[in-house]
Amino acid sequence: MTTQAQRHTLIGVLGGMGPLATVDLLQKIIEETPVSRDQDHVPVVAWNVPQIPDRQQALAGTGESPLPALLAAVEQLNRLSASHIVIPCNTAHHWFDALAQKSEAPLIHIADATLASVEYLVKNRAKVLRKIGLIATRGTLDAGWYQQRFAALGAETLEPDEQELATLFVPGCYAVKRGELQQGGYLLEQLAQRLIDRGAEWLVLACTEVPPALAAINSRWLDISLDPTRALARACVREWAMLS
Amino acid sequence: MTTQAQRHTLIGVLGGMGPLATVDLLQKIIEETPVSRDQDHVPVVAWNVPQIPDRQQALAGTGESPLPALLAAVEQLNRLSASHIVIPCNTAHHWFDALAQKSEAPLIHIADATLASVEYLVKNRAKVLRKIGLIATRGTLDAGWYQQRFAALGAETLEPDEQELATLFVPGCYAVKRGELQQGGYLLEQLAQRLIDRGAEWLVLACTEVPPALAAINSRWLDISLDPTRALARACVREWAMLS
Repeated sequence: MTTQAQRHTLIGVLGGMGPLATVDLLQKIIEETPVSRDQDHVPVVAWNVPQIPDRQQALAGTGESPLPALLAAVEQLNRLSASHIVIPCNTAHHWFDALAQKSEAPLIHIADATLASVEYLVKNRAKVLRKIGLIATRGTLDAGWYQQRFAALGAETLEPDEQELATLFVPGCYAVKRGELQQGGYLLEQLAQRLIDRGAEWLVLACTEVPPALAAINSRWLDISLDPTRALARACVREWAMLS
Repeated sequence: MTTQAQRHTLIGVLGGMGPLATVDLLQKIIEETPVSRDQDHVPVVAWNVPQIPDRQQALAGTGESPLPALLAAVEQLNRLSASHIVIPCNTAHHWFDALAQKSEAPLIHIADATLASVEYLVKNRAKVLRKIGLIATRGTLDAGWYQQRFAALGAETLEPDEQELATLFVPGCYAVKRGELQQGGYLLEQLAQRLIDRGAEWLVLACTEVPPALAAINSRWLDISLDPTRALARACVREWAMLS
């Protein structure tokens, strides 16, 4: 039976940052939809056009702003009557408010989607989360989206330090962008280990390049990791499945 | 350096048949693009909306035509100024001419893309192909797209019989659509075995649900299989990389 919500749902994916992270989200939307035939899957239109200036460089003041390209993509998704827009790139959420202002379709924030998954975890698995390790870009760490939400749950956030970002996170992330997932995975696993050593009980993989990299090496830390890309996929499925 | 061809390339993917086959194509486009950073990847917009009547049922006379939904999708991709349109579903190519007629952007036929890959194989690996096993839907087999192209290369095509289609192919294919890739893989591997037993030296996996299923079980037949989804991905990359 098609519900009212389903008839009006078309998830617009503002992707390309990087293209593999977008494919990872699309894959996870399918995995998170419990259906028996093609026609029951979530309708998605994915703008996977990676010709967008580098987000990390823009925030570091060493590259041009991606905002014009992001706005153009939001416009295209609205032209297609997307009902909701999601962005499988954490760092790009720096421009979230500017994009939401220009979009008829509401944007779903990846940190809100992640918070819903953390709350589910706490409630259904009776986990007490005191220390969460946050793996993210400098731009995402500075923005504080995750730290503020975790603090509201009474959890402390552990962050990578500058040296860990420069020697483990950034090269790991750019290895994924080059298609070298295993190399990226080994670097990012070392970063995960550092945060665990400092007391993190749980990890949040808040850069969309990280989950495919850790999956590629079947990292032992995946069992205690929370994946914002999967949380975003679940949020899309919830919009699709919601009864009117 | 951005070439003239790159500035004007936007690959439109008419997907959703099924959604996983579309994700598989997007993944293979990325794998086939030898680049070092996000911005060098092929720009793609994917219409992954699976609310399209079942193609196999339509051709068997037991379901409604998917043509109106396909035409609407082609119209959307043209509105976005797609430069080329590809369809990661072999059976849907039954409506290829009707769609091409209504599309400003040229459509790339998956069997043409596959022929280019077969020719490459013959030329570069000095393979003599005498007997090719074709794994496909009843609709694709009846259409003759692959058989005609293989005959032009001097190769004979071996096809599944009705019982193999009914007991191995169709349940294998619909298992993938339900997300049961391993179960699909085991059924489709049995079908591959039958064609090999009858003398096939090479297999062409001409239903886009088949490559992910055989990959899920790491099938031993993948080494002698040609994947039209990957061939289509290569055709997309060629359009992107082509010098003006």
